[in-house]
Amino acid sequence: MTAPANFNGQLPTIDPDDTAMLLIDHQSGLFQTVGDMEMTRLRANAGALAKVASLANIPVITTASVPQGPNGPLIPEIHENAPHAQYVARTGQINAWDNPDFVEAVKATGKNTLIIAGTITSVCMAFPSISAVHEGYKVFAVIDASGTYSKMAQEITLARVVQAGVVPIDTGAVLSELQRTWNRDDAQEWAGAYSDVFPPYQLLIESYMKAQDVVKNNETLDSQR
Amino acid sequence: MTAPANFNGQLPTIDPDDTAMLLIDHQSGLFQTVGDMEMTRLRANAGALAKVASLANIPVITTASVPQGPNGPLIPEIHENAPHAQYVARTGQINAWDNPDFVEAVKATGKNTLIIAGTITSVCMAFPSISAVHEGYKVFAVIDASGTYSKMAQEITLARVVQAGVVPIDTGAVLSELQRTWNRDDAQEWAGAYSDVFPPYQLLIESYMKAQDVVKNNETLDSQR
Amino acid sequence: MTAPANFNGQLPTIDPDDTAMLLIDHQSGLFQTVGDMEMTRLRANAGALAKVASLANIPVITTASVPQGPNGPLIPEIHENAPHAQYVARTGQINAWDNPDFVEAVKATGKNTLIIAGTITSVCMAFPSISAVHEGYKVFAVIDASGTYSKMAQEITLARVVQAGVVPIDTGAVLSELQRTWNRDDAQEWAGAYSDVFPPYQLLIESYMKAQDVVKNNETLDSQR
Amino acid sequence: MTAPANFNGQLPTIDPDDTAMLLIDHQSGLFQTVGDMEMTRLRANAGALAKVASLANIPVITTASVPQGPNGPLIPEIHENAPHAQYVARTGQINAWDNPDFVEAVKATGKNTLIIAGTITSVCMAFPSISAVHEGYKVFAVIDASGTYSKMAQEITLARVVQAGVVPIDTGAVLSELQRTWNRDDAQEWAGAYSDVFPPYQLLIESYMKAQDVVKNNETLDSQR
Amino acid sequence: MTAPANFNGQLPTIDPDDTAMLLIDHQSGLFQTVGDMEMTRLRANAGALAKVASLANIPVITTASVPQGPNGPLIPEIHENAPHAQYVARTGQINAWDNPDFVEAVKATGKNTLIIAGTITSVCMAFPSISAVHEGYKVFAVIDASGTYSKMAQEITLARVVQAGVVPIDTGAVLSELQRTWNRDDAQEWAGAYSDVFPPYQLLIESYMKAQDVVKNNETLDSQR
Amino acid sequence: MTAPANFNGQLPTIDPDDTAMLLIDHQSGLFQTVGDMEMTRLRANAGALAKVASLANIPVITTASVPQGPNGPLIPEIHENAPHAQYVARTGQINAWDNPDFVEAVKATGKNTLIIAGTITSVCMAFPSISAVHEGYKVFAVIDASGTYSKMAQEITLARVVQAGVVPIDTGAVLSELQRTWNRDDAQEWAGAYSDVFPPYQLLIESYMKAQDVVKNNETLDSQR
Amino acid sequence: MTAPANFNGQLPTIDPDDTAMLLIDHQSGLFQTVGDMEMTRLRANAGALAKVASLANIPVITTASVPQGPNGPLIPEIHENAPHAQYVARTGQINAWDNPDFVEAVKATGKNTLIIAGTITSVCMAFPSISAVHEGYKVFAVIDASGTYSKMAQEITLARVVQAGVVPIDTGAVLSELQRTWNRDDAQEWAGAYSDVFPPYQLLIESYMKAQDVVKNNETLDSQR
Amino acid sequence: MTAPANFNGQLPTIDPDDTAMLLIDHQSGLFQTVGDMEMTRLRANAGALAKVASLANIPVITTASVPQGPNGPLIPEIHENAPHAQYVARTGQINAWDNPDFVEAVKATGKNTLIIAGTITSVCMAFPSISAVHEGYKVFAVIDASGTYSKMAQEITLARVVQAGVVPIDTGAVLSELQRTWNRDDAQEWAGAYSDVFPPYQLLIESYMKAQDVVKNNETLDSQR
Repeated sequence: MTAPANFNGQLPTIDPDDTAMLLIDHQSGLFQTVGDMEMTRLRANAGALAKVASLANIPVITTASVPQGPNGPLIPEIHENAPHAQYVARTGQINAWDNPDFVEAVKATGKNTLIIAGTITSVCMAFPSISAVHEGYKVFAVIDASGTYSKMAQEITLARVVQAGVVPIDTGAVLSELQRTWNRDDAQEWAGAYSDVFPPYQLLIESYMKAQDVVKNNETLDSQR
Repeated sequence: MTAPANFNGQLPTIDPDDTAMLLIDHQSGLFQTVGDMEMTRLRANAGALAKVASLANIPVITTASVPQGPNGPLIPEIHENAPHAQYVARTGQINAWDNPDFVEAVKATGKNTLIIAGTITSVCMAFPSISAVHEGYKVFAVIDASGTYSKMAQEITLARVVQAGVVPIDTGAVLSELQRTWNRDDAQEWAGAYSDVFPPYQLLIESYMKAQDVVKNNETLDSQR
Repeated sequence: MTAPANFNGQLPTIDPDDTAMLLIDHQSGLFQTVGDMEMTRLRANAGALAKVASLANIPVITTASVPQGPNGPLIPEIHENAPHAQYVARTGQINAWDNPDFVEAVKATGKNTLIIAGTITSVCMAFPSISAVHEGYKVFAVIDASGTYSKMAQEITLARVVQAGVVPIDTGAVLSELQRTWNRDDAQEWAGAYSDVFPPYQLLIESYMKAQDVVKNNETLDSQR
Repeated sequence: MTAPANFNGQLPTIDPDDTAMLLIDHQSGLFQTVGDMEMTRLRANAGALAKVASLANIPVITTASVPQGPNGPLIPEIHENAPHAQYVARTGQINAWDNPDFVEAVKATGKNTLIIAGTITSVCMAFPSISAVHEGYKVFAVIDASGTYSKMAQEITLARVVQAGVVPIDTGAVLSELQRTWNRDDAQEWAGAYSDVFPPYQLLIESYMKAQDVVKNNETLDSQR
Repeated sequence: MTAPANFNGQLPTIDPDDTAMLLIDHQSGLFQTVGDMEMTRLRANAGALAKVASLANIPVITTASVPQGPNGPLIPEIHENAPHAQYVARTGQINAWDNPDFVEAVKATGKNTLIIAGTITSVCMAFPSISAVHEGYKVFAVIDASGTYSKMAQEITLARVVQAGVVPIDTGAVLSELQRTWNRDDAQEWAGAYSDVFPPYQLLIESYMKAQDVVKNNETLDSQR
Repeated sequence: MTAPANFNGQLPTIDPDDTAMLLIDHQSGLFQTVGDMEMTRLRANAGALAKVASLANIPVITTASVPQGPNGPLIPEIHENAPHAQYVARTGQINAWDNPDFVEAVKATGKNTLIIAGTITSVCMAFPSISAVHEGYKVFAVIDASGTYSKMAQEITLARVVQAGVVPIDTGAVLSELQRTWNRDDAQEWAGAYSDVFPPYQLLIESYMKAQDVVKNNETLDSQR
Repeated sequence: MTAPANFNGQLPTIDPDDTAMLLIDHQSGLFQTVGDMEMTRLRANAGALAKVASLANIPVITTASVPQGPNGPLIPEIHENAPHAQYVARTGQINAWDNPDFVEAVKATGKNTLIIAGTITSVCMAFPSISAVHEGYKVFAVIDASGTYSKMAQEITLARVVQAGVVPIDTGAVLSELQRTWNRDDAQEWAGAYSDVFPPYQLLIESYMKAQDVVKNNETLDSQR
Repeated sequence: MTAPANFNGQLPTIDPDDTAMLLIDHQSGLFQTVGDMEMTRLRANAGALAKVASLANIPVITTASVPQGPNGPLIPEIHENAPHAQYVARTGQINAWDNPDFVEAVKATGKNTLIIAGTITSVCMAFPSISAVHEGYKVFAVIDASGTYSKMAQEITLARVVQAGVVPIDTGAVLSELQRTWNRDDAQEWAGAYSDVFPPYQLLIESYMKAQDVVKNNETLDSQR
């Protein structure tokens, strides 16, 4: 069935109270092989996911593929932005879901919904996503916080995971689905995360505040001095 | 089920007599973050939707996300082109469908089919579309009258809403599906809307009329004078 | 259902003996609005479809949208390449399937499978394709022999028609599916049609024949004279 | 000499008091052949040139290539925006400078500097520009208010006219070089012209005014109601 | 049904023990017509598939479309990298599955899962994939080891095969799904195959080894000499 | 000197009475290596040059690089369109100007201006162009009737030949510079050549003629029947 | 003269001891209009210039165009990274060089070489660059730390400033030309600036340090545990 | 002077007998930062230069920028393909020409013409090229065997080095200019180098040889069996 799997008639959106986030293999070496999106955007998106997982109190599990080899270490901002994240070392398995410790850690969260991002998309994100669906999880795969070697590989993977019942999602949608409303005390911190994901937002804020300051301070336009 | 949801074997096209249009968060600040299409095209497409809603006598509901903040005001042509549109203010909800007044207004139209466009696509269009399908509406999501931060985010969202049973549609198809025939008195006004959506159409009309004027006025080609 | 509609477990490929081809609104004015592919490729693809319909003895029905207005006349190679094609004039309907004469002509062929191409893709191809599926036909929609105003509109339409049970297909695949084998007397004429659809094929033939002529004629390389 | 020709050590910028503008062959048919830039951008840029010529009181001369034939009529906004423009009919010459009436009209302005735009760039803009340099004029060629059949043709023409001593310039630079300062009474009208040339400017103004209105009117953010 | 066909609730991933690989029509002439991806990438991907089929002990069947004509011979690295591959000559059939010898060879492997790549994608890969699904095989179609005449044709074909129940996959995912773990004796040989598919991997290895050599050999940085 | 070389103060445009055209190495094999422009556009442009050389009575000299080898034969339309062209065989020299027979043939025309196109641009066009400038010829290099392996190689070559004093030109400009005026008896034949170079022109003519026929024949619009 | 102006036979490179840097109109509103490069890259490049001006002890002068209006405020990192920068307010002039205070500030530095960047490129960077060359300065214009509304406008401006004798330069080259050698005490700080300009450099450092740590700490590869 | 510098009226082409080749900083780490061209093409082009330097007996000098640090080691194929190359270690200088040993090595060749390629283009290629011109060398800069961080940086550098009198050249042109004729004993080895630079050439050869084998061996087409 290619409808969102395991929702059983429920609305196919993220319920923050029943969700864990898996951030897989965001490593400095693997990032060098990414060709479907600008690496800086990928890096900012992955960091933003970690940040909002903290804001929304969502458990985070990380792992890496042989970080002692050419794949390189995890980018540091993942654990900096989500200090509560749990790192699970694997012993060579490419599909994180093949590692018993990893699956154990996921189960220990007690959550039924998974947000999954992983570099490279077609492997490190796709395999655990398909496996988790098969084991009954509701899965949201964050394509633009993953990264793969070509745009074509990304498009193929999108089609594959949708076919398997995974819900595809972009980073901006994850942020909004977790935040739900601007009517909350930590609204400013969420705004900061949006600036990571769509950088013009920072310009909007800068222009907005200056425009209001001009009124508040009765500033004269330079061209009218 | 990923077939068009809630059609129950009916032809999955727009029935103008049973349709309302929801135009969500087309705001000057959010437009600055759009990266999947040229902003001028987006702006023209959104304006054209409002215009043909008027021509086809379709109810329109608009709303905005905190228009007093950096997101900015609604672009004015929405209400200029659809003077009958009803504006519903929200109180911070990101998903318009989470706002009771908004849902109330939709229900009050008595229509079972919704044409939905919203900036940004992956949030403001996708969330209400998926919610409305879940509540039994037939939903047409106008991807190219919405706009999001990257082409990849647009592609992901297209896959997501299709998976959820939403019918994806482009602005030009909405126009034609509402118009149905050129054999109507207001055909000229519809032609004007097409020029908004595919601008070469204006050139076609200009060339066509001049070509015929040359015959009618017996003009000599300059090169033959 | 989004599987190929109306195949009822049969192989979802084209059966030339049970197929008619509908070529809709390939008009000089509408071609000027095409933005999703190079117009010359579109024109060559549409012409190639007509050509192989002749080779495969498949009925062809053509129609145009107000060819007396800015949309312009049908490009002449459609009827030149398929002299047996039947032209059906409409009276303003945008969806050809809304025109009773057109539907009548389709039914008169007695075929259950339709190959449909039409400019613009999102309207002139999509509407009749969806309508025909709804009436029980097996439909193959030739996306790259249609043409629409933007790549995004093409992508949206592809998703829409697939969702409706239409089988999407490219021009090259239509040619091959009709031809089936190179072991036939008219193989040369099919090769000509491929050169229309992927022009490097003409270079391949030219290089191939020269390479063999050099052997046959014992030519010396210029660089060895 | 490939330095800016005929400046004789003067600063190679536009002196509005010594300048005339030539707008050549901006015709609806020729616009359909443009492939190096989006036609809507070209049309807006050409219209903006006419508009600022009016604001800056610069003489404008227009002409067209056989507007009774497939090339089509001049786009109307040229003369609408520059009502003082003088139209010179040619008698078939492709290079406007080969038409004695046209050259006569240029000379009658008494200006030594020419701003030239023309569709198609490689012909209608390039030939008169090169000819005018040869006759001693200082020439500014507005590449992005001209338009030609391919990006490659545009790049070749840019190189050719620079080699000939023409100063290449973009539409935005023409506007600024004519305006010189925001400290002028008609500043608002110039701002309008910039919105034609870089459309996000309109969004900037809309956001700016709303941001200030919020302060002036003590509006509450919707999310804080 | 558009879910992965013939899996019957099994995990839709590759089981190396139940899999054969079909490499179809990777010929020097057909490669000249490829327009959806860089030919060198296609050639490297096809070669890598053959290489890992050897590493994973998977049967390989190859075939070609009239290699004595303009389509040209098979690229030699297919059989060089998979010396155990079996070549089946056809007698003109475009769809390899229409050739009885070919189907016979597939059946003789006794495998129920097929990895299929073929040039051109929309014909040589799509037709056998759809046919094999129809006959009960689990099919993985390797889109980026196939190649077709345009990006649009590739996108259409992707949609078509997914609709038919084929699992779409990219070359990198095939490699990883066959390898499963880095904890194996032949890990170095798999690393070599990855360098074929995403070439920056070779740079990563070179940089990694040099960085470690600097420590091991106590090398001084040139800039500190 | 990087101004147009050898013009000595003359207008740097083409004088048809003093010009010969050199069409070099437009061969079916070399065309397969072209990556800076669509091969079909290149082929059409090269053919159009030959056609207008005939119309303008300009001598044409052709040559090929080892046409008995993988480079392949000259595309036939060169000599078909310019039956008066003279073919000069080389004996292995890459730079045609290194072949004494070729230089002899050029000199025998008695012309001082050369229009040169050649595949590949960076070699077969660039070397003879630079050599001819060095020997005192005025040279116009037709970049978009040549073709090379990458856009970057084309850009580098453009810069190089301009630096050497060659005048860069596009195919459309060559046509117009040779034609000079539409006020000539063979105007229709020139229009045909333009349709080769910018194909929308054919659509313009088709639309134009139909629009006028509607008036002449008092046709009713289908939508008004 | 189109050779580098005012160098008088000296090597046309930057002499840090004789150089001042002018950073013009890098404002949050103007940044929203930039279309020739990704805004985040532009912002990072402009910030990097300010940073290395500090490292190299080069005077910096900044200015803004009516920052009280829709153009918005200067982005803050300019003055954060170059705390010694001097801000000069203008009174409406578009060309900063038209403002006497600005020119006075430049002269007061006593430097003869200027590095100039400004948004928008075709106006705010080009006009002062051309003016400064005319007044005898050696000028390096940093195109990719400026930003304008279209790629075409950027290309035109590049050609224009080169024609005027300005030396075009990219941000990375400015960094290297100021740094000159890695054999200096502050080498680490320069490496940080490179990571701003070409972000993969940060990955290189992360991978490099991890690779060496693995040796130093005798870490076992996860795949070999 | 922006004409080719230091040629003094000689033909601005490469004289193999008076030429040395400088291959600078082609390092595995720096290659990861290249964004103006595909890294695999760059790597192949740099390798091909080394190969033809061997074939043409041209001295080669290599150097690297702190290869013990994150920049990484030289790619091995440089010295593999040019075993006679001389490596010169620098002591931190970014501009290789600032290193006395390097300049000494260049002078020791006794050649007056230099072919220079270096990663990154805007620094490692541009600085030595400009320096060498200033010291009287004729310099050919191979832009597409260098590589820099963005297309824009490449375009800026091209303009800068041309302005400085450097002759820009692409890899393919270097090969042909060194080879001069196919009428030489080592023609096959040169053909191999072309296959590195434009890979379709390999397909041409494979197709060519098979086409001739079919004749020689009287093979029957499969489709005619």
